[in-house]
Amino acid sequence: MTTLTLHSPLDMHLHLRQDAMLKAVAPLSAETFAGAVIMPNLVPPVDSLERLKWYREEILAAAGREDFAPYMTLFFRAYTREELEAAKPHIIGIKLYPAGITTNSEGGVSQIDQAEPTMRLMEELGIPLMIHGESNGFVMDREAEFLTIYRRLAERFPRLKIVMEHITTAAALVLLNEFENLHATVTVQHLIITLDDVAGGMLNPHLFCKPIAKRPEDREALAHAAVTAHPKLCLGTDSAPHPQHKKECCGCAAGVFTAPIALQLLAGLFDEHDALDRLQAFVSDNARRIYDVTPPAKAVTLAKKPFTIPASYGEVVPMWAGREIPWSVVGA
Amino acid sequence: MTTLTLHSPLDMHLHLRQDAMLKAVAPLSAETFAGAVIMPNLVPPVDSLERLKWYREEILAAAGREDFAPYMTLFFRAYTREELEAAKPHIIGIKLYPAGITTNSEGGVSQIDQAEPTMRLMEELGIPLMIHGESNGFVMDREAEFLTIYRRLAERFPRLKIVMEHITTAAALVLLNEFENLHATVTVQHLIITLDDVAGGMLNPHLFCKPIAKRPEDREALAHAAVTAHPKLCLGTDSAPHPQHKKECCGCAAGVFTAPIALQLLAGLFDEHDALDRLQAFVSDNARRIYDVTPPAKAVTLAKKPFTIPASYGEVVPMWAGREIPWSVVGA
Repeated sequence: MTTLTLHSPLDMHLHLRQDAMLKAVAPLSAETFAGAVIMPNLVPPVDSLERLKWYREEILAAAGREDFAPYMTLFFRAYTREELEAAKPHIIGIKLYPAGITTNSEGGVSQIDQAEPTMRLMEELGIPLMIHGESNGFVMDREAEFLTIYRRLAERFPRLKIVMEHITTAAALVLLNEFENLHATVTVQHLIITLDDVAGGMLNPHLFCKPIAKRPEDREALAHAAVTAHPKLCLGTDSAPHPQHKKECCGCAAGVFTAPIALQLLAGLFDEHDALDRLQAFVSDNARRIYDVTPPAKAVTLAKKPFTIPASYGEVVPMWAGREIPWSVVGA
Repeated sequence: MTTLTLHSPLDMHLHLRQDAMLKAVAPLSAETFAGAVIMPNLVPPVDSLERLKWYREEILAAAGREDFAPYMTLFFRAYTREELEAAKPHIIGIKLYPAGITTNSEGGVSQIDQAEPTMRLMEELGIPLMIHGESNGFVMDREAEFLTIYRRLAERFPRLKIVMEHITTAAALVLLNEFENLHATVTVQHLIITLDDVAGGMLNPHLFCKPIAKRPEDREALAHAAVTAHPKLCLGTDSAPHPQHKKECCGCAAGVFTAPIALQLLAGLFDEHDALDRLQAFVSDNARRIYDVTPPAKAVTLAKKPFTIPASYGEVVPMWAGREIPWSVVGA
């Protein structure tokens, strides 16, 4: 039986929510990941050091194990130098949401220009900027339209580390290669599905997320970049738990839940491309280098052995619930 | 108060289903329409004269009024000359579904070439061919990819009246203008919504249909053609009732239910474009000329008076349930 051991896999974009949902999903990520970048879009958002420290404690308690590092982010707003200097030792970066684009991002930045003084300080202090890069335009064009803003920021802040979060288009990869200070995360689902899987047959709310899955040529470009271990690209699952009743309803919330099955799905994808030897870079080594982090030691062993994705994890339905996939986690 | 009286509105593409659903929805169409082209995609399909006559009686009984004409269609298969000659007085046309594209179309035609002998007979006998024109490709490209097949059929069968059903793209309008023997229907929703309304905010299963709503420039081109009363374009609502539990679920069925609100929505759209005087052509006169039918006399009066779309009609949730729209039916 083919097996593969990954060392300290990292999820560089993760939603853990709060309270009961946090308690339900944090252990699922902690089981197979050595660390994760935690999104700050709670209600209200995590935009103070005090709230961030509280949230980190909540996550550690919920995860319930020592070998899982929550890499905390602040929600972007206008921060003072003093605030940023105080926060820096506690954060891996600051997450910027353009206003109103995604779940709980109503407080995001509506005018990128107003954000520049804070970005200047972040550049000076060496704090990475993570961005949900979508315009308010037509759903299939939102990321492409935002690329001009990425370009402008990359040019204006050449020493600022900018992470294009959850990229979904071939065009974003082209831009990624153009600027040294741009980096990117990509989700599991955007390596595997297209809009066809969301709305081409039956409508599938469990594959509906923002940014929405794009065209086949986009998926192919992203999968190619992942399986060739593009050095500026890391896994960020954007795994986002919503209770089943918020997904299977008249106005379904955006977000795909993949945390507990991400590594199994990726092993399958990389195996298909004869690229299992590059999975370690995609799920850990690239991130360690880009973000300069040293995660807890953790070995996760996968085997080419069929695994049936559970119908649900508590009240959360995962991507491809009930489907059999070729790879399993056999030791973590 | 602004009012408008429409004479014998016609819905040139309608799904009425069977049994309890037929009894629930047929009266809703019969209330404001003088006739409708009835889709034959029952299970099993309506592909014999005997079954068609039975279905017509069921519809007349369910509609329960004299001033509603069901224009019957047969489901496309290889028919003999004798079958077509016998069917001709009873049908308005034959509906072709490429295999597996939409609800209950599993028996559709997979190889267009195999269909040509029957099409040749239809051309000779003067029986219109209605087509659900989508390829098996990427969901946003399916109609555009099918245009080459429309083109080929239009060229090979110059005297066959071909109706491109429920067109959704600007490209289909370009083709419509290129061939005299091509005609088209368009739904209410494709004049009003884009993919943004289906999946740009929350996912909205009640706006999910096949073909899926396309880009803003497509919607604009279609609305322009409708409000200028393009002479080869008629209303065909494609109103498709599914019970609520088949829409608000994990794998939601395709179809938007608009029959009871179609004329009110159209009055609003045409009013916005200062084109109320062209609505009669779009909802009736064009169809009478294209299909050579004389519908029952029926006057339907609308007024610019707010109307709140019901939350449901029986177990069917309509488009924009609960929303207030500016026009009402005040007499039918």
